[in-house]
Amino acid sequence: MSGIFISFEGPDGAGKTTVIEALLKKIATITNKEVLVTREPGGSEIAEEIRQLILDPKHTEMDDWTEALLYAASRRQHLIEVIQPALAADQIVLCDRYVDSSIAYQGNGRQLGMEKVKQLNDFAIQGQLPQLTLYLDVPVEIGLQRVKKLGAGFDRLEGQELAFHQRVREAYLKLVEENEDRIALVDATQPIDDVVAKCFAKIQQLVK
Amino acid sequence: MSGIFISFEGPDGAGKTTVIEALLKKIATITNKEVLVTREPGGSEIAEEIRQLILDPKHTEMDDWTEALLYAASRRQHLIEVIQPALAADQIVLCDRYVDSSIAYQGNGRQLGMEKVKQLNDFAIQGQLPQLTLYLDVPVEIGLQRVKKLGAGFDRLEGQELAFHQRVREAYLKLVEENEDRIALVDATQPIDDVVAKCFAKIQQLVK
Repeated sequence: MSGIFISFEGPDGAGKTTVIEALLKKIATITNKEVLVTREPGGSEIAEEIRQLILDPKHTEMDDWTEALLYAASRRQHLIEVIQPALAADQIVLCDRYVDSSIAYQGNGRQLGMEKVKQLNDFAIQGQLPQLTLYLDVPVEIGLQRVKKLGAGFDRLEGQELAFHQRVREAYLKLVEENEDRIALVDATQPIDDVVAKCFAKIQQLVK
Repeated sequence: MSGIFISFEGPDGAGKTTVIEALLKKIATITNKEVLVTREPGGSEIAEEIRQLILDPKHTEMDDWTEALLYAASRRQHLIEVIQPALAADQIVLCDRYVDSSIAYQGNGRQLGMEKVKQLNDFAIQGQLPQLTLYLDVPVEIGLQRVKKLGAGFDRLEGQELAFHQRVREAYLKLVEENEDRIALVDATQPIDDVVAKCFAKIQQLVK
């Protein structure tokens, strides 16, 4: 694997999509490597079908561990079909959410346990972590307000209560603390240009 | 949980379905407890949708770990929605295949490693093992011949090569050896009445 694998994390409304789009253009100015922007399920038909199953609002009786196992299955298939081939082709992969999302959302949000969800996901990723994870941090209220302003409608996950999102943020902050070599925290309450500039500075250290 | 949880294992063509049907009638003669005959996905809509995804013949690009994670997800949902409520209602549950199938088929058949697949499935079953597992043992060639005679058509799993099925049987024999308190081996090349009688004798020890 000769490519560069970068993941983006953060609560809904942190601005990941906007930041990734801006970074895509800036990265093109410093390298000839191809850049792949992806997010699970990312065009894998199998991963897509798994994801539809998870997010179907009629599946109210879905057990939390079933959900965690399905996310891991979708992640595995996306890794095999999308991320690994891109890395093998020497591309830069910008992935919107990866394993840290499950540790934060299922592990602490749904209170299955961060360590247990990490162990479960080890079966999916088999040690393949990003070289860099950019965590866009915003207080829960601001993130949720931004999501509402977009008017995109709440799916089953976004409709959870505020306490759930508080636990998710706490988990991310803990992950940053425990993985300082890999995860960089970026204050996403700043103006978008500043957020992009800080992310880009981190990426420049990898893309030489 | 006051019910009794019994699983049935063995290769395709071992005769599990026929044996379970016969046992259902015999058990009714010794107890007033209700008996639930089930197999994953067993009427759970979510587990059913997961299972359809696994067995869809067009999913040839499915990674082996994705498959193992999906089986674990389907098992989890079937346990929560079907098995646990029946046990809580003091029923006898006869389950056609459970965790040992994954350890044998994914662990050794697909060579992911029996211990790893066992650990993965711990997230699905959270310690809930059957009180008794009846393993119907037949040599691979006999099992496959029986399946062909039924003319049911081969699905994606049954179409695998002979060596795969040899590894599955080896795994079952190892599981019997390592779990002699839980798993009983029954020689399923015997006449069906003898197979049923031996299974029933084991069940009688549990149902008093």
